[in-house]
Amino acid sequence: MESESRRAFMQQTLAVSLLAAAATGDARASEGTPAAPAPAFELAINPKPLPFDPRSLHGISERLIVSHWENNYSGAVKALNAIRGRLAAASADANTPPYLYNGLKREQLLRTGSVVYHEYYFGNLGGSGTAGAKLRSLIARSFGSYDAWEAEFRKIGNGLAGGSGWAVLAWNPTLRLLENYWLADHGHGSTASVPILVMDMYEHAYQMDYGAAAAKYIDAFFSSVQWEVVEARLAAISA
Amino acid sequence: MESESRRAFMQQTLAVSLLAAAATGDARASEGTPAAPAPAFELAINPKPLPFDPRSLHGISERLIVSHWENNYSGAVKALNAIRGRLAAASADANTPPYLYNGLKREQLLRTGSVVYHEYYFGNLGGSGTAGAKLRSLIARSFGSYDAWEAEFRKIGNGLAGGSGWAVLAWNPTLRLLENYWLADHGHGSTASVPILVMDMYEHAYQMDYGAAAAKYIDAFFSSVQWEVVEARLAAISA
Amino acid sequence: MESESRRAFMQQTLAVSLLAAAATGDARASEGTPAAPAPAFELAINPKPLPFDPRSLHGISERLIVSHWENNYSGAVKALNAIRGRLAAASADANTPPYLYNGLKREQLLRTGSVVYHEYYFGNLGGSGTAGAKLRSLIARSFGSYDAWEAEFRKIGNGLAGGSGWAVLAWNPTLRLLENYWLADHGHGSTASVPILVMDMYEHAYQMDYGAAAAKYIDAFFSSVQWEVVEARLAAISA
Amino acid sequence: MESESRRAFMQQTLAVSLLAAAATGDARASEGTPAAPAPAFELAINPKPLPFDPRSLHGISERLIVSHWENNYSGAVKALNAIRGRLAAASADANTPPYLYNGLKREQLLRTGSVVYHEYYFGNLGGSGTAGAKLRSLIARSFGSYDAWEAEFRKIGNGLAGGSGWAVLAWNPTLRLLENYWLADHGHGSTASVPILVMDMYEHAYQMDYGAAAAKYIDAFFSSVQWEVVEARLAAISA
Repeated sequence: MESESRRAFMQQTLAVSLLAAAATGDARASEGTPAAPAPAFELAINPKPLPFDPRSLHGISERLIVSHWENNYSGAVKALNAIRGRLAAASADANTPPYLYNGLKREQLLRTGSVVYHEYYFGNLGGSGTAGAKLRSLIARSFGSYDAWEAEFRKIGNGLAGGSGWAVLAWNPTLRLLENYWLADHGHGSTASVPILVMDMYEHAYQMDYGAAAAKYIDAFFSSVQWEVVEARLAAISA
Repeated sequence: MESESRRAFMQQTLAVSLLAAAATGDARASEGTPAAPAPAFELAINPKPLPFDPRSLHGISERLIVSHWENNYSGAVKALNAIRGRLAAASADANTPPYLYNGLKREQLLRTGSVVYHEYYFGNLGGSGTAGAKLRSLIARSFGSYDAWEAEFRKIGNGLAGGSGWAVLAWNPTLRLLENYWLADHGHGSTASVPILVMDMYEHAYQMDYGAAAAKYIDAFFSSVQWEVVEARLAAISA
Repeated sequence: MESESRRAFMQQTLAVSLLAAAATGDARASEGTPAAPAPAFELAINPKPLPFDPRSLHGISERLIVSHWENNYSGAVKALNAIRGRLAAASADANTPPYLYNGLKREQLLRTGSVVYHEYYFGNLGGSGTAGAKLRSLIARSFGSYDAWEAEFRKIGNGLAGGSGWAVLAWNPTLRLLENYWLADHGHGSTASVPILVMDMYEHAYQMDYGAAAAKYIDAFFSSVQWEVVEARLAAISA
Repeated sequence: MESESRRAFMQQTLAVSLLAAAATGDARASEGTPAAPAPAFELAINPKPLPFDPRSLHGISERLIVSHWENNYSGAVKALNAIRGRLAAASADANTPPYLYNGLKREQLLRTGSVVYHEYYFGNLGGSGTAGAKLRSLIARSFGSYDAWEAEFRKIGNGLAGGSGWAVLAWNPTLRLLENYWLADHGHGSTASVPILVMDMYEHAYQMDYGAAAAKYIDAFFSSVQWEVVEARLAAISA
């Protein structure tokens, strides 16, 4: 999981390098060079490999997690790349009315959300399921106790049984709190907050192993959380 | 706007102090003290005053912006406080099934989103409308050119005319891009990204001044953007 | 409003004529003639005129209702026609993946909803605001009393103040009840029910006249309901 | 399936009897008797049994369809009954602000939608999968050809693979068309239209049998459609 925490820190680094590039007049960044690549429209991404051995999870089968990665996550990556192509074409076509352009933007939001939340989800799996004392204290600070946090997180997960969505623990920088939320689909978001723990509650995350017994999947999820990553994500926000 | 950029930095500071508190064994943060306050359930917040003189905007009337602040934003603050009370009661009531608890959590997400996005929105108004060269370069780096960014941002705003939602420019740390999104309501989010510029496209943001002429409101918004705040928000993310 | 009730009955008639056409082997309806018009993809519709004098409403100004008809409703008609054109093109293009096709279908649902709900809304305005005894009894049968119904309908309208959506009284044929619902946007629906009374709670329905004072608009709406139409709609369902 | 088509006709009959009851002064229907039952708030419903032998579907296993009925559909019935109880309590409590009341109404809409769409879905399963000539002609009339209809219906189903929602063929009385729609969740609706064919695309409808291979499930669905019911539903609308 070293790489995951490094990735979190590198996001920061990259932003710094953006600033640096601008300062030094990097040609690619300068205005007035419309021929330069515009990643917001043209970026094509590749799926990231699972950051753990797919046979190593506690209570989530290799068959399920590989199907999840291949069909749902990789499918979202492919869809997002396709949508960027359509957005570039629509941008260049003066006949596209804004409400139709917004239809594509909605798909971009949904597919980006699917890619990003899946990467958070896989990124916080593959561990021992035991949170460290420091992180437990930080969580307790917002929720009264670690157990109160876990009880609410499990409850909102169970409330999504048979439906679909995400359960998220996130740092809300405006309210200065850790908060739990559930998101009805990939286009929802925890209000400008930064997720540190993400649990997929779409039925493809558990039906193959547990049928409709979502509560058993939530147990398996908690047994498999990679808490070091969660701690690193929180630290990266506050470093 | 100095205070706004300071607030952005203080969000970081606070997270650091959370870590520090945990390290030093701050009693309030320790586990096993369920009697300690649990801000996630009990926090009551007050509306923040408008960070500019309501008579100072270019093309948005004092009457409208004051109504917006009093009715829509302050109303959301009041609603959020009320919902926290209901959540605390529902948490303590073992008869609340998870799907009913989640109904309250959905309201919490919606009202928190309304509070947070309104604070971002008011926070990036009150300026000259002229973006600095460094920020324009950073935006161009993601969009090819600053003008390409502005064209897409205006287009998604116009696509929301007669409807409701938010237009957002946000830093996506996973894709390492600045991206524009529109959000269909307060519960949507720019996929784990951090907003740096927010434009309210609910009709209460413009009907009183412009009727159905949303494009004129978008012009007024662009004339009133406080770009120093936007730049500080981006810097705070990447500092 | 005679024409409105006639329209309701003619919907039935048309379905009957569909059956008749099929029975008699109407060429246009036969399979295997793909060159025949396919209204689901090619239909172009025109806005229906307001079914009342725009100066005649009690507490809703001519300026507002005309803007509502011209900008919001007629805009939705225009958008729906444009989306059908895109759907026809996407259908004919084998390179359109289903998830992108569904993006257009979502827009079709939203724009159709906007057209249809607006026609219901304008269709039930222009009256005296006084429901007849028979209809009041039918409403009371589902809600305990007419007043209980009105109280809930007003409450859900008020709950949408400052946001957007529709308040709907509809006949649910599965549960065999009249029920009130609010719909968060044009894509929502009262679960296979047939609306008989529709109130627009988008802010364009009242901001121009009342600013944020949605409750005053709800009073004006109730003063202007054309209850004969509502009664005819219910009769058409149960005839 | 005789009972299903009878049920469709009886919905009409019931509405007629509502009118009759009102006309004859049925005590339960009269206003001013608030003590009388108010079904909109107090109705408690029971799950309807599967209208076919669960071992009889082509390509959908008994295990899956029974789990679907027991967990997802019956769970929705139970949830809806619970929510009516909460609505009755909230109605009687003057301290419930409208936006919190609306949170419950949203849940009512979602759970009612789940109950109703599931009943439509089970109701149109258990058949031979072969549509009769008359119905094919009626479908062709709206879509150009029966095959064009089926191609679009399958496409929007496939577009929901890995996500969740409903695919619906419905009669739109305003536009006087049969139309296909997909609905993102139980709260969406085909814009005041009456469904005649409903396909569940939540992953619980297929993951247990097919994993992520949604297209195979769609084949199985088409092999199992009870078209006589679909035809009777359309006839009931237009009778």
